[in-house]
Amino acid sequence: MRFPSDPRERPIAVFDSGVGGLTVLHELLVRLPNEDFVYLGDTARFPYGDRGPDELRRFSLQIAEELLARGAKLLVVACNSATAAALPALRRRMLETTLGVDVLGVVGPEAVHAVTATHNGRIGLLATTATVASGAYAAAVHAADPHVDLIPVAAPDLAPMIQSGFPFDERVVEVVRGYVAPLVEAEVDTVILGCTHYPLVRPMLQRMLGRDVRIVTSGAALARQVEHALGSRGLSSPRTGEGAYSFLSTGDPEAFRMLGTRFLQLPLGEVEQVRLHAEVAA
Amino acid sequence: MRFPSDPRERPIAVFDSGVGGLTVLHELLVRLPNEDFVYLGDTARFPYGDRGPDELRRFSLQIAEELLARGAKLLVVACNSATAAALPALRRRMLETTLGVDVLGVVGPEAVHAVTATHNGRIGLLATTATVASGAYAAAVHAADPHVDLIPVAAPDLAPMIQSGFPFDERVVEVVRGYVAPLVEAEVDTVILGCTHYPLVRPMLQRMLGRDVRIVTSGAALARQVEHALGSRGLSSPRTGEGAYSFLSTGDPEAFRMLGTRFLQLPLGEVEQVRLHAEVAA
Repeated sequence: MRFPSDPRERPIAVFDSGVGGLTVLHELLVRLPNEDFVYLGDTARFPYGDRGPDELRRFSLQIAEELLARGAKLLVVACNSATAAALPALRRRMLETTLGVDVLGVVGPEAVHAVTATHNGRIGLLATTATVASGAYAAAVHAADPHVDLIPVAAPDLAPMIQSGFPFDERVVEVVRGYVAPLVEAEVDTVILGCTHYPLVRPMLQRMLGRDVRIVTSGAALARQVEHALGSRGLSSPRTGEGAYSFLSTGDPEAFRMLGTRFLQLPLGEVEQVRLHAEVAA
Repeated sequence: MRFPSDPRERPIAVFDSGVGGLTVLHELLVRLPNEDFVYLGDTARFPYGDRGPDELRRFSLQIAEELLARGAKLLVVACNSATAAALPALRRRMLETTLGVDVLGVVGPEAVHAVTATHNGRIGLLATTATVASGAYAAAVHAADPHVDLIPVAAPDLAPMIQSGFPFDERVVEVVRGYVAPLVEAEVDTVILGCTHYPLVRPMLQRMLGRDVRIVTSGAALARQVEHALGSRGLSSPRTGEGAYSFLSTGDPEAFRMLGTRFLQLPLGEVEQVRLHAEVAA
């Protein structure tokens, strides 16, 4: 595979277990319009939530090899489970490459963003049961500011409801209302959406939380870090016009395209089905 | 029809020729979560764009009577054509009522918002041909600041594409790109979306315009004025929990519900079909 000899012209690679990471790509496309992107959704092995850390490290390294072979200048892990399990292993592997590719993940950027956004020191977290149980957000928030309170709420039904059905539904409202209640009760002034599916119901959440509560999404927080990472390494695209973006899926490409459009809120175009061969030792 | 004796507990009424005004209601629901709302879409007589001012005044007064009969404490005209043709007539009529109901329309709030947002004094306008031709935005912008340049672009194909089909489509991208080009060329730093359909393609617009360009929508600008209007008259809802919202349509209620959900990005629930009888002299 050939790619531009000027590393600044190479794409930023983003991956997730499925379509949820497209809400992260959405923010990147809007905030970094001059960059090229390649997105890989590992839909054939979705969901990652119930898999063990060894397996997730193996999957993540396979995907990283594929994206590196496509000329990635930066790797973004747009998946909570993969970030928690594989970020250090990915960083080691990618820094061994000729270009020394940086790897950025979720969790850390939202935690830093939330800590700077809160005024009353009370931050809510909405995430999957596994993410809440991992303690990753609590650790990241307290690393950024040990004096802040994090109020975590596990929302086990929310991501499947958003993904499988229609996100603007009375049933979804009732489920979301139940998850939001303890955050309102705790008087948080900032809420981290700790799952990439949740931005699709952001208007509903904002209405229930009240308009003065600041909602922090992975995409918005990560976009800033991606920009800094490119800038500090002299890797920002020299282009002034709009960049291109393309999609890879390990599962059915048409299903990916149909569902993905709702998450991206931009046209998806063609989706290429990809087989991941390279098994790499973690 | 009975409604609360405390006028603060009455609903805010919003109307449009169809579903476009739901993007305005969306902002109101998120920014004023404690208020009740009733929305009327005059889909049986959609579109308003090609109708004359006398007819639009007649339609608007009919609708206002219906909404007044449902206890409206404030009337919001979420339609460019109706605002341009009927705002003064509506204001006269509504101030004659027992409660002295205020009427707020689009155009004015966006103009004021854009003038305060711009740094370089160059504001773009995307709107329908009729709205651009009316000169209403130019007048409103220059009333707020005579030294600001307004660069208007008529986008005749955009609202029908958004309404009839799928808004995240390659065809839409190409059409939008053509409309955005003269705004980029003119180096505007602020763009007014002068049609209530356009917020559905906001991410696409933001990416093409560049992330530093401020996009001003009718909904966000109006929500602030609605809040001030209620506050200054002591009419803000005393409720602390979430308010209710309901929908009336002069056309097929199921079609309204299906299309409307996409515009509202919140559940619509039941839609009541309404017949407008009262003919009122303008």
